[in-house]
Amino acid sequence: MGETHYARRRRLAALVADRGAAALLVTRLVNVRYLTGLDSSRAALLVPADGPAVLATDGRYAGMAAQVCPELPVVVDRQVAEALVRRAAEDGHGRVGFEAHDLTVEHHTALLGIERPGGAAAELVPLGHLVEELRMVKDEEEIGLLREACAVTDRAFEAVLPEIRAGVTERAVAIALERAMVDHGAEGPAFDSIIASGPNGAVPHHHPGGRELQRGDLVTMDFGALYGGYHADMTRTVAIGEPAAWQRDLYDLVHRAQAAALAAALPGAGTKDVDAAARDVIAEAGHGEAFTHGLGHGVGLEIHEAPLMGYDKTGKLMDRVPITAEPGVYLTGRGGVRIEDTLVVRAGGPELLTTTTKDLLVL
Amino acid sequence: MGETHYARRRRLAALVADRGAAALLVTRLVNVRYLTGLDSSRAALLVPADGPAVLATDGRYAGMAAQVCPELPVVVDRQVAEALVRRAAEDGHGRVGFEAHDLTVEHHTALLGIERPGGAAAELVPLGHLVEELRMVKDEEEIGLLREACAVTDRAFEAVLPEIRAGVTERAVAIALERAMVDHGAEGPAFDSIIASGPNGAVPHHHPGGRELQRGDLVTMDFGALYGGYHADMTRTVAIGEPAAWQRDLYDLVHRAQAAALAAALPGAGTKDVDAAARDVIAEAGHGEAFTHGLGHGVGLEIHEAPLMGYDKTGKLMDRVPITAEPGVYLTGRGGVRIEDTLVVRAGGPELLTTTTKDLLVL
Repeated sequence: MGETHYARRRRLAALVADRGAAALLVTRLVNVRYLTGLDSSRAALLVPADGPAVLATDGRYAGMAAQVCPELPVVVDRQVAEALVRRAAEDGHGRVGFEAHDLTVEHHTALLGIERPGGAAAELVPLGHLVEELRMVKDEEEIGLLREACAVTDRAFEAVLPEIRAGVTERAVAIALERAMVDHGAEGPAFDSIIASGPNGAVPHHHPGGRELQRGDLVTMDFGALYGGYHADMTRTVAIGEPAAWQRDLYDLVHRAQAAALAAALPGAGTKDVDAAARDVIAEAGHGEAFTHGLGHGVGLEIHEAPLMGYDKTGKLMDRVPITAEPGVYLTGRGGVRIEDTLVVRAGGPELLTTTTKDLLVL
Repeated sequence: MGETHYARRRRLAALVADRGAAALLVTRLVNVRYLTGLDSSRAALLVPADGPAVLATDGRYAGMAAQVCPELPVVVDRQVAEALVRRAAEDGHGRVGFEAHDLTVEHHTALLGIERPGGAAAELVPLGHLVEELRMVKDEEEIGLLREACAVTDRAFEAVLPEIRAGVTERAVAIALERAMVDHGAEGPAFDSIIASGPNGAVPHHHPGGRELQRGDLVTMDFGALYGGYHADMTRTVAIGEPAAWQRDLYDLVHRAQAAALAAALPGAGTKDVDAAARDVIAEAGHGEAFTHGLGHGVGLEIHEAPLMGYDKTGKLMDRVPITAEPGVYLTGRGGVRIEDTLVVRAGGPELLTTTTKDLLVL
C-alpha cells in the first residue's frame, strides 16, 4: 500500500507545482486517507511541490499512523491544520495552497492568524479540487475493492430475496439487507438504505418506515456495501404479486432508459450527454418531469464524488471512472421505479460491477 | 413536534436580533434538523430576527418537508444557501448572519457573488455558533430520546455478554453489539464501535479487527445506539479470565477517576475542573501521561458536541446538559482501560443514562 500512496502524493506534488504553490495543505479527511491510507477523524497532510510530505494527527491516531504510513513524518497535535501551517512556515514554504471546499471560513480565519517568521501572516491560496481530480480515475486496486463491494451487495440481495414479501415492513427489509451485507463481508452499509414501497416509491429518498409491503406494490430498494473503504450503490425495484399493466410499463420504461445510459457511458462522452441518453427515453414517454434528479454520480472512497452526472454541463467521462446510472420515475401518490448499477467506464464499454438481474422480479 | 421546533426558532431569532443581524442563514444540516425536524442531506434555513423562517431543500426532500414541517414555506432548489441569500435580499434583509464554522471558503465566496437589488454584493456576517449554543441545554423531550438510546445500549450489552469470550474476534464482538442494538430498537449504531483487546487496548480509537480475544486480555468496548436522532455513548472494559493484579489495579484506578468526575459534574462546575477531577486521580497514581485525551464531550444530535470536557478552559456545565465522562489509561504494548457513561447534568447530581454495572466483569 505504501508505494501506491507515495505515487499518489507524487502526482499531487506535480499538480501543486503546476499551480505555482510551494505546498498544498490537505484537510479533507477522505483526501488524507487517499494520500496516506490513514482513516482517522482528525488528520491533515502537507504535500510540498518538492520534498517529502508531513502528516499531522492527534494522539489517538499516532500509533495507527506509524503502522499505516511509517514512511511519513508525523506531527502529533490536536490542531492538525495549524500545526502544518506552522511547519510550512518553518520549512520556508511561501504560497501554501488549501482546500477552499473543505476549510470553513472560521478555520481559514484562524489559520490566517498564524505568523510566519518575520511577523507576516500565513499566505494561503485556494488551489481548487486537486485531490478530487486525482481520485476520479481509479487504479485497478481501487476498482478491485469496489468490485468486491458490489459483489457483496449482489450476494446480500440474493440472500434477502426470500424475505421480501407482503406483510414485512420497509424497515425490516432494510435491516435484513444491511445484516446480509455484513454477513457477506461488508464493513457496513455504504449509506442509509432506501426501501420505498407502494406510494412511498414516489419519494426518491424515502426513509424506510413501518409500512408493510402489500400485494400490488412496487418496492424500490437502494442500498450498497462498504468494503475496504469503497462504496457500492445499487437500486432494484421489484413487484409484490403480479404487477398492473401501468407498473410493468413504468418498469420497462426505466429499464430502457437505464440501458440507454449504459450504452452511452464511454470514455470521452459528456456526462450531460449520458444523462440525456436516459432522460430522453423517459421524456419521450411523457414522464420527463417525473425524473427529478440527475442520472448518477462517481463512487469510490465517498458514496457521492466526481463526476456528477447530469448537472455539470462540461464534464467528460474517462477510462477507469466508476459511476452510477440510476434513472427513476416518481408518480406522486402512486409509486415509482428506479434502477441503478455501479459501473466502471471502460474503452470497450462499461464494466458492470453490480450484476443482479434487471428483469422485473415478481415476488 | 411543530411547536417545539417553532419555539427553538423563536429563541434563535432573539439571539439573531441581539447580535444586530436581520437574519441568520443556517447551513449546518444538524442545526437545520434541530430547528425544523427535517433530516436531510441538503437543506438550509433562513431565520429572520423578525418574521417567519424559510426552508430550502431540493426536490428529493420537498415531500418530506411538507410532512415534517408543514408550517414552513419551502423553496425547492438544489442550491439551498444561494436560494436563501437571494430570498433574504428580496425580503430586504441587510446584514445576514452565517455559520462561519460550517460554510466553506469556496461556498462563502460564491454567496458573496450574489447580487442584491441595486447591484451590491450580499452582506454576510459571521455570528458565532448560535444554534450549537441553543442545542447544548436539552429539553426533556430530547433527554427522553437520549435516555432511550442509552437504555438500548445497556440492553444490547447485556444481550451480547455471553458471546464475549476467548476465541471470538474483535470484529465479531462489534457486529454482535451493533446487531443487538438494532434488535433492541436502535436506528443503528451511533458511531463506529471500538473493540480493543489485549495490547490493542492501548490504542484509544482502535478499529476492531481480526484479533481473537484471549484469556488474560482486558477488552475495551466503546459503542452506543442511535435512537430518534440522539446518540448514546458507553465504554466498558472487561477481563477475559481472571485478571492479573496490575490489570485489576488499573481498572480500579480508572473506575475511581470516573467516579470522581461524576461527583464533580454539577451545574456551574467548570468543564476543565470536572476533567481535572478524574485526571488528578490518575496523575496521583503516576499514569497522568497515559490519559491521552479529554474527559468527554456533549452528546445529542451529534455524537460529539458542545461542551468539550478538558480542552476548553472557560466552559461551565449547566442543568440539562448531557455529557460523557470517559477517563482512560493506555499502556503501550500492554493494554488499557476506559470506562464511560453518558449522563445528564442535574442540580441534584448527574442522572446516569447508561446504567450497566461498572464492577469489573470477569468473563
